[in-house]
Amino acid sequence: MATLGLVEYFNASPEVRAVYDDIMVTRRIDRINNFWKALANDPSTLRRTWESIKQIMTPGALDPLTKEMIYVAVSATNQCAYCIASHTAAARKAGMSDAMFAELMAVVGMANETNRLASGYQVEIDSQFVAGQEKDRFLAKAPRSPRKKKR
Amino acid sequence: MATLGLVEYFNASPEVRAVYDDIMVTRRIDRINNFWKALANDPSTLRRTWESIKQIMTPGALDPLTKEMIYVAVSATNQCAYCIASHTAAARKAGMSDAMFAELMAVVGMANETNRLASGYQVEIDSQFVAGQEKDRFLAKAPRSPRKKKR
Amino acid sequence: MATLGLVEYFNASPEVRAVYDDIMVTRRIDRINNFWKALANDPSTLRRTWESIKQIMTPGALDPLTKEMIYVAVSATNQCAYCIASHTAAARKAGMSDAMFAELMAVVGMANETNRLASGYQVEIDSQFVAGQEKDRFLAKAPRSPRKKKR
Amino acid sequence: MATLGLVEYFNASPEVRAVYDDIMVTRRIDRINNFWKALANDPSTLRRTWESIKQIMTPGALDPLTKEMIYVAVSATNQCAYCIASHTAAARKAGMSDAMFAELMAVVGMANETNRLASGYQVEIDSQFVAGQEKDRFLAKAPRSPRKKKR
Amino acid sequence: MATLGLVEYFNASPEVRAVYDDIMVTRRIDRINNFWKALANDPSTLRRTWESIKQIMTPGALDPLTKEMIYVAVSATNQCAYCIASHTAAARKAGMSDAMFAELMAVVGMANETNRLASGYQVEIDSQFVAGQEKDRFLAKAPRSPRKKKR
Amino acid sequence: MATLGLVEYFNASPEVRAVYDDIMVTRRIDRINNFWKALANDPSTLRRTWESIKQIMTPGALDPLTKEMIYVAVSATNQCAYCIASHTAAARKAGMSDAMFAELMAVVGMANETNRLASGYQVEIDSQFVAGQEKDRFLAKAPRSPRKKKR
Repeated sequence: MATLGLVEYFNASPEVRAVYDDIMVTRRIDRINNFWKALANDPSTLRRTWESIKQIMTPGALDPLTKEMIYVAVSATNQCAYCIASHTAAARKAGMSDAMFAELMAVVGMANETNRLASGYQVEIDSQFVAGQEKDRFLAKAPRSPRKKKR
Repeated sequence: MATLGLVEYFNASPEVRAVYDDIMVTRRIDRINNFWKALANDPSTLRRTWESIKQIMTPGALDPLTKEMIYVAVSATNQCAYCIASHTAAARKAGMSDAMFAELMAVVGMANETNRLASGYQVEIDSQFVAGQEKDRFLAKAPRSPRKKKR
Repeated sequence: MATLGLVEYFNASPEVRAVYDDIMVTRRIDRINNFWKALANDPSTLRRTWESIKQIMTPGALDPLTKEMIYVAVSATNQCAYCIASHTAAARKAGMSDAMFAELMAVVGMANETNRLASGYQVEIDSQFVAGQEKDRFLAKAPRSPRKKKR
Repeated sequence: MATLGLVEYFNASPEVRAVYDDIMVTRRIDRINNFWKALANDPSTLRRTWESIKQIMTPGALDPLTKEMIYVAVSATNQCAYCIASHTAAARKAGMSDAMFAELMAVVGMANETNRLASGYQVEIDSQFVAGQEKDRFLAKAPRSPRKKKR
Repeated sequence: MATLGLVEYFNASPEVRAVYDDIMVTRRIDRINNFWKALANDPSTLRRTWESIKQIMTPGALDPLTKEMIYVAVSATNQCAYCIASHTAAARKAGMSDAMFAELMAVVGMANETNRLASGYQVEIDSQFVAGQEKDRFLAKAPRSPRKKKR
Repeated sequence: MATLGLVEYFNASPEVRAVYDDIMVTRRIDRINNFWKALANDPSTLRRTWESIKQIMTPGALDPLTKEMIYVAVSATNQCAYCIASHTAAARKAGMSDAMFAELMAVVGMANETNRLASGYQVEIDSQFVAGQEKDRFLAKAPRSPRKKKR
């Protein structure tokens, strides 16, 4: 049971209802997830979180499917059952196939493994990563404006 | 200082050197990262980890750049400094632009935020996610055989 | 089902019962939570954990409500469903309003987000934080004895 | 070295400079932390993150000091060195004494311990926590509008 | 409900069935856990994961019971309910008594506590740990060949 | 730089010095680690933490080496650099060989990987784990007193 309960559409304030409407229109869905209904107990957090999500998940240098898969990767790493369920559903809706999901999980598992091997073995960061970043950074800075968003 | 020290190429055993060679050829690089040099103290873990990474990071249903960005997402979530540095470098080498990195970070940050909002508010999983998965699963299962598993 | 089962009051050893009694008296409650009943399979851990909790959660420089909210913040960050449920209940009992809970969650979410932005962007610690701490430390050390625990 | 480098005030775009100005005025400081200088490579994330932080950390049902301590609690739990350093400094500036810091750490440590005891012993959530929340929720909902932000 | 469903023995492909057979023979069990049935949707991950587990959990410098307890320690730290349940069962089968489980949990809890005290207090690593490792490393390197690698 | 600085032996209060003495005698060492010197700013946390550690790490159903390795497993999972360094040193002092360390890391890495595969694939807990625990529990409870601590 959600800590503060869920705010259903029919008894939501106009402020909350406006966010709900925007969510449904933006996502082309006809019902609101429990996550938003729970946040609606705090309208300012509801609005801020939705505005941030809307801004971040919009197509940009990365496409929506890639973004949803990154969301799943983080959620699986953090063991957030709700978020794994909801964002896996969102990723599938955005086009994630079974094969893509399987590869996503394989990378997530492997990254979690090698993260601990690197820390457990107390491996020092290679100087070339630092230096390389530096160089890339200078190169990247110069021609920044005409950056091709080709992906 | 790495716990067991680093095994340099010139004093590596033939078994370790074979893995080093495969890493350099596969990745088209001419030096071995500290991570592998640290693991080389345990040749079986070195070989197993490399074989797994090689299999997982190869192009398949997901392209190498997407995989590297997922790797960065997990590493940033886990606060693994070594892995953030090395996989950010790898992702850039695979084509990640500054804009792609910035969007990746925005998603990672947001996912880490909403993961805690979902758990902190004790939000229950929506029935449609479970049901939806179920339906997707059945639909997905049926025509499964002819799916191109090109990976 | 708890791994070692739950030790109920009526069949607890005198040693365990003494801790149960102290918990109920200290917290002014008339039943023992499953957490303690599970730990009671190991009386020394039960006692040690309770003694530590009792010492730590007592009013001091921080009031009990603030401490319970910090407990919720950590539990939400770690995705511990049991601890979120029990400490949210405890915090409410100690006076946490809906509005306080909502702000608590907003901070917890934001902190989890910026924690990853800071690590993901590989931001170096500002020198003033180190230097500032140093100065604060020296200033703080001097007049230490007469510290007013007014909060 | 920050992945994309740091954007200094003197060579920042007007858009970034506007955020920098707002940070310095709002926080009554005369320099910008590396965190913001790193985010400034992505002006939209800089602006969004700052607007969120400003909204969340403002005095409300919880005072700024409590909020900063919650920030430290999350950052210590996540092992984010940058965030621990910067928010510990911020909390001290907001009035956190050595004694308050010590109690904060004691609670954070204990919560991290019992989070794992609860999950490791596979303790089921007590029915009263669920039921209790339910009841609290209904009671809390009714007189919601005239909520006194007295804290 | 597992995301991609569970692959039962009777409708598994020969490739998957071969792994299932090896699991049952190696572990002397007569049914396959849900974990493997879920992974079987991606035969290459099923095979790779099983081969890694089989190699890693085999008796070596550490005995199987110690390895299973380490597995439980990590799973409790990560709050992975499935893994806590399955590896606690495996550890018990390998001989873990109630008393051993209780001590395991006590160490896991304490380590999670002091991990946060160390990071929260921003404690610097003692020079002797680095130096000590260095010395150990040199001593360890020299007579390395004659070490009995019985694993 | 530790947040509150380090309390050196020569300027420690008698209360702190008593704990320092007990640490050095119990562990047969002649200097105090930074961890304890940092905690000493809060004598009650210093004493409580040391008493807990002393009680937990003493030989029991598990030997000290196993306990130290479990400590390293948790610390590597949490990415706590200080704790990895200090407890790896402690484990080596307690007899951990290079081969044991390597196997420890292999298990820690694998557990962190499969923890995410289990959560990411949303695998449901097998009924036999729950039922099996139940049965084990009843069997285990009966003859509890004469438990043989043979390990």
